[in-house]
Amino acid sequence: MRNLKMVIEYDGSGYHGWQRQLGRITIQQVLEESISSITQEDVRVVGSGRTDAGVHAMNQVANFMTNSTIGERNLLAGINSLLPPDIVIKRMMEVDADFHARYHARSKVYVYQIYNGTVRSALYRQYVWFVRSPLNMDWMKEGAMLLTGTHDFSSFCASGCGLINHVRTIERLEIDRDNNGLLKVNVEADGFLRYMVRNMVGMLVDIGKGNRRPNDITDVIGAKDRRRAGVTAPAQGLFLKEVRY
Amino acid sequence: MRNLKMVIEYDGSGYHGWQRQLGRITIQQVLEESISSITQEDVRVVGSGRTDAGVHAMNQVANFMTNSTIGERNLLAGINSLLPPDIVIKRMMEVDADFHARYHARSKVYVYQIYNGTVRSALYRQYVWFVRSPLNMDWMKEGAMLLTGTHDFSSFCASGCGLINHVRTIERLEIDRDNNGLLKVNVEADGFLRYMVRNMVGMLVDIGKGNRRPNDITDVIGAKDRRRAGVTAPAQGLFLKEVRY
Repeated sequence: MRNLKMVIEYDGSGYHGWQRQLGRITIQQVLEESISSITQEDVRVVGSGRTDAGVHAMNQVANFMTNSTIGERNLLAGINSLLPPDIVIKRMMEVDADFHARYHARSKVYVYQIYNGTVRSALYRQYVWFVRSPLNMDWMKEGAMLLTGTHDFSSFCASGCGLINHVRTIERLEIDRDNNGLLKVNVEADGFLRYMVRNMVGMLVDIGKGNRRPNDITDVIGAKDRRRAGVTAPAQGLFLKEVRY
Repeated sequence: MRNLKMVIEYDGSGYHGWQRQLGRITIQQVLEESISSITQEDVRVVGSGRTDAGVHAMNQVANFMTNSTIGERNLLAGINSLLPPDIVIKRMMEVDADFHARYHARSKVYVYQIYNGTVRSALYRQYVWFVRSPLNMDWMKEGAMLLTGTHDFSSFCASGCGLINHVRTIERLEIDRDNNGLLKVNVEADGFLRYMVRNMVGMLVDIGKGNRRPNDITDVIGAKDRRRAGVTAPAQGLFLKEVRY
């Protein structure tokens, strides 16, 4: 049996997230159906992790086991020809039998896009969070620095997220602004809790607006209480950019 | 009466181009309906020029006359609140009574986006032409140089384009490639014939593939025959980037 690793790009706008759900269309399901129809097996795809409804991916990683003898190149072309225009497999390669896209992920990089201007954007609308109020980048960067490092991120976890261990290490959290008012929050961590990026971005935007002070981050982390972090940034601005192994 | 100039951004995917047409939805029509409903007049919008079905604009310019006494800022906010998500007015300002968005345009800048890679893109799909074959940038740049300047562009005009004067001056034609395989053709001219950018890009891509030589450009211009230039690049890669006055 071969173990095949894939790098996948998708526009999450039309999907209820990555993971299979009864009666709802998801990325995983569409991938599994397309792959199964080419390999003529009942294929199960393991993703590096879930992405939520409406979240996009530039480079999601997943793997699947197959008895098919079709070469990677032809498999990729065949599966891509069945996938809808908003999902595509960018690369496919055979890996060791024990490779597991979720268990072996060392870190992930997400990017969150904010369109900061007085008027909404027509061209970026499906891929940004439109924030009208001016954002102070210095304050946001100060807040970002306080989030970086190893912390218990319970305050930034979706309410009811059931994990016992909420400690994660943010290795990098950078905020850049381009000439078109597009602000990008890049964040790399060894793992992410549900809604963690979107909750952090929500709080950073609040800080950028001047509604909260950068130092509040320390208190909010300490509180371990979801109600303290504030708004959740909308899904459409979020991209899974890279999974590192 | 006030003469108001607007800068407009739109995603052309869902429209039959700029210009009003009976029984088909166009940008001009949607704008006129939204403006008229705010100013309570029958408003006529003059664009800097047409964009074809499926073509986008970062900064289309248009103007309209109005008796409304609503300030520009409130007008802009009111109209934008009625416009669909894929059309937005970015700026609005009062100009001299004789300003005419079409007659007074000195030059226009278009950008054409090509996604050059072995696999199509899910995220860029609505805004690029996907070209799978490797493109030789040096050859394309050589071809671009031969298109630059003042020429009779009959060979690059849509068949049956009815104008008498097909002479235009291309002031600038630059091709850049970014790290993600996105290739951008930037072209500025004093005016464009119908399909001119898309026909030029079609020929440049043929040159990049090695199907034609850069020098063929000179022959094709000389021939003044549409059938000589080759394929028309698809609409979805084209953006009206700027109109200069």
